[in-house]
Amino acid sequence: MKEILDYAKQSQKRYLDELVDFLAIPSISTDSSHNNDVINCADFLKKHLIEVGFQQVDVISTKRHPIVYAEYIQDKHLPTVLIYGHYDVQPAEPYELWESDPFKAVIKNDYIYARGVADDKGQIFCHIKAVEAYIKNNVALPVNVKFVIEGEEEIGSLNLPEFIRENKERLKADIALISDSPMYAKGQPSLCFSLRGLLYVELFVKGPNKDLHSGQFGGLVQNPIHALAVLLASFKDEHDNVVIEGFYDDVPQISERIKQSLSGVPNSDETLKKDLDVTTLVGDTTFSSNERKWLRPTLDCNGIYGGYTKEGAKTIIPSEASAKISMRLVGKQDPEDILAKVKAHISKHTLKGITTRLKLHSYAKPASMSIDSKAMHAAQKAFERSYQNTPYYVGEGGTIPVVADFKELLSIDTVMMGFNLPDDGIHSPNERFGLENFYKGIETSLYFLDELRNA
Amino acid sequence: MKEILDYAKQSQKRYLDELVDFLAIPSISTDSSHNNDVINCADFLKKHLIEVGFQQVDVISTKRHPIVYAEYIQDKHLPTVLIYGHYDVQPAEPYELWESDPFKAVIKNDYIYARGVADDKGQIFCHIKAVEAYIKNNVALPVNVKFVIEGEEEIGSLNLPEFIRENKERLKADIALISDSPMYAKGQPSLCFSLRGLLYVELFVKGPNKDLHSGQFGGLVQNPIHALAVLLASFKDEHDNVVIEGFYDDVPQISERIKQSLSGVPNSDETLKKDLDVTTLVGDTTFSSNERKWLRPTLDCNGIYGGYTKEGAKTIIPSEASAKISMRLVGKQDPEDILAKVKAHISKHTLKGITTRLKLHSYAKPASMSIDSKAMHAAQKAFERSYQNTPYYVGEGGTIPVVADFKELLSIDTVMMGFNLPDDGIHSPNERFGLENFYKGIETSLYFLDELRNA
Repeated sequence: MKEILDYAKQSQKRYLDELVDFLAIPSISTDSSHNNDVINCADFLKKHLIEVGFQQVDVISTKRHPIVYAEYIQDKHLPTVLIYGHYDVQPAEPYELWESDPFKAVIKNDYIYARGVADDKGQIFCHIKAVEAYIKNNVALPVNVKFVIEGEEEIGSLNLPEFIRENKERLKADIALISDSPMYAKGQPSLCFSLRGLLYVELFVKGPNKDLHSGQFGGLVQNPIHALAVLLASFKDEHDNVVIEGFYDDVPQISERIKQSLSGVPNSDETLKKDLDVTTLVGDTTFSSNERKWLRPTLDCNGIYGGYTKEGAKTIIPSEASAKISMRLVGKQDPEDILAKVKAHISKHTLKGITTRLKLHSYAKPASMSIDSKAMHAAQKAFERSYQNTPYYVGEGGTIPVVADFKELLSIDTVMMGFNLPDDGIHSPNERFGLENFYKGIETSLYFLDELRNA
Repeated sequence: MKEILDYAKQSQKRYLDELVDFLAIPSISTDSSHNNDVINCADFLKKHLIEVGFQQVDVISTKRHPIVYAEYIQDKHLPTVLIYGHYDVQPAEPYELWESDPFKAVIKNDYIYARGVADDKGQIFCHIKAVEAYIKNNVALPVNVKFVIEGEEEIGSLNLPEFIRENKERLKADIALISDSPMYAKGQPSLCFSLRGLLYVELFVKGPNKDLHSGQFGGLVQNPIHALAVLLASFKDEHDNVVIEGFYDDVPQISERIKQSLSGVPNSDETLKKDLDVTTLVGDTTFSSNERKWLRPTLDCNGIYGGYTKEGAKTIIPSEASAKISMRLVGKQDPEDILAKVKAHISKHTLKGITTRLKLHSYAKPASMSIDSKAMHAAQKAFERSYQNTPYYVGEGGTIPVVADFKELLSIDTVMMGFNLPDDGIHSPNERFGLENFYKGIETSLYFLDELRNA
């Protein structure tokens, strides 16, 4: 083990340079003007994985962005771990709030600043570099490893389920591993046992067939922005609970075992309020804030647009307005069922004189695993060896749809090991990843592979 | 009277030639590259008004474009009418849609085609030519006349209120007259007795100090788009009535006299629904649609923006959202009072965890006058003599701020006599003004001055 750890330590500078090259490719999956960058990023990874020494590396086309697959089969009798990550990134807007170019990584105060460095390029790179340390030292890997690195995570992993379905044999594994979530705090690792699902829709509201003079027509014609506001307001009550009929039907009660485990995880409410510059947090206070953000569903409007939005005033009743709306799902909530319930709610609350149309952007089922499994314990030990600290068992409010897919299609659980920090600004300007976490992430991955040997 | 009418008739050809010269000057007020044309146009008017025989003609500088003032005081014991118009015009773009040069007037099928011919050069010219007919025939004018012809109407009459305030004595009059609106239909004149006022604000809602990941923070942090939607929805009830406390306090009941008069003005509901492609009109049906669009206040959201609005999906709780909101005011509703009520309403309905800020864009008071005044009757009789048809009494849903300024600063009502037609294309390519309406406009003005003698 020592030689591998030494190798990883001595290679830190090179590992970082390679990561910087990876970060320079603006692989923004949602923006079709970046399609070529996404392809270039997949090709970069393929080349790199071949250099690392993987036995087989493929770039597999999908209907949109390609998937990178790599494997190193040490011994078919050993357990196999399937490591998932994504090489696509969120858009960088608003650019003006970035202190440096989002696609030219800058090292400052022991952090790497770049779009995608924490979510997820830096984290997947930890595992690639850990495997490299074994291979380059000719030390037998304790387990077989398979990598699936996709390019559509930020747009809902649309083509991943089909890929998994069509490659069940190839992807066969005993456990999956993902690092696409944060650790609890600096120096305090965490293991994620629960992920929320997602339903992302866009609601279009249409009124008159053209923009109208608000003086000449005001009082006669339904205003689509008003109608949209009425719909958005109707989704939630004053306690931030969703009031769509049946929305909570498949939301499970939180068990005593979990409640107890979570009660040992300090909440960060006061820090959060200060960091975000808000006077108060919101939500149903019959649940703790950790329970609310990890184990309870939500509904949020992510964007809204309609009418005249430039400088100054224009007196119109606009022809249309639209809003992007996402819901975080938990337990047995099924995105298709929830979609039907949202549609029924919209029908019921649509004002007269307008028409609505709902577009489905993406969806993912929620997922969770036992905190008492062997793989979870192996992960716990790996963290204890690298960080000298016992991880908290936590939930993740976001969505990693692939976890539900792995469960459903490959019948395996997923260990979620996060290395970035909650204030690393993923999806925000000035996204960053600590150098310490990058290097400790590699170390933890080395230990985890080692611990899995006995799991 | 006969000799004046004969003079006006015999002078039609010359009147038209003079109007064509007036129209040839591209006095586009919004475009500073036309500043010299605006000045030339004011000088042209001055020269012309002197030729017509006005006793005093001045071109008065303002911070931007000059105002032309002219007067003919027949006898200081006679009533005085203050005639307002504007010599500036809208830009002519898009040029390619004009069938002839916008600044070389063409006579075709009994219409004059040129930029500004209906709005407002042709209409103000009617009144100048009517006064000329009296002066040139040495017939005593039945009333004293004062003309204010400004060069900034198309850019919001920015310097007019100050001019009025500083020239109260000089502008002293018993009634004002404006011809800058359409008649109801060809052959069907109308008199406007009511204009709605305006209050235009922008509401900014601020939540967390940066965009947040909706998975990681959803359930804890107030969403500013949701909070904005709740505010917008809270402004109106399901009948499209505004529910801001005290909003209707100063909205007068519509008198039986007005209700009866308006019931004689055909509504265009069915045509409107078809033209706008909407299934139904909205609003409080205890009022007719003419009442709703002319005599009832409204609140409309003119634009809304927040969060991620580009293609695809981005899962954020945005930091802020904003909406442009305008209110049309009637009766005694005072923009400043309504602004205070809007602010109070916002305070009351703001969800916790966010802050709001309200920016005032512009405001104008509503204005109305009795349909039973002597001046209105004089106008009605003038139309009956010229068009052989009784005018409809109508409202205007939009705002003509000068009317409220005359009321407030000079304490006079305004008769609004329109001569152009709704389809004359003001502000559009191929703007036109019917020869019949030009000549009948002059005739109506002659009769109106005559009728005012007895008013």
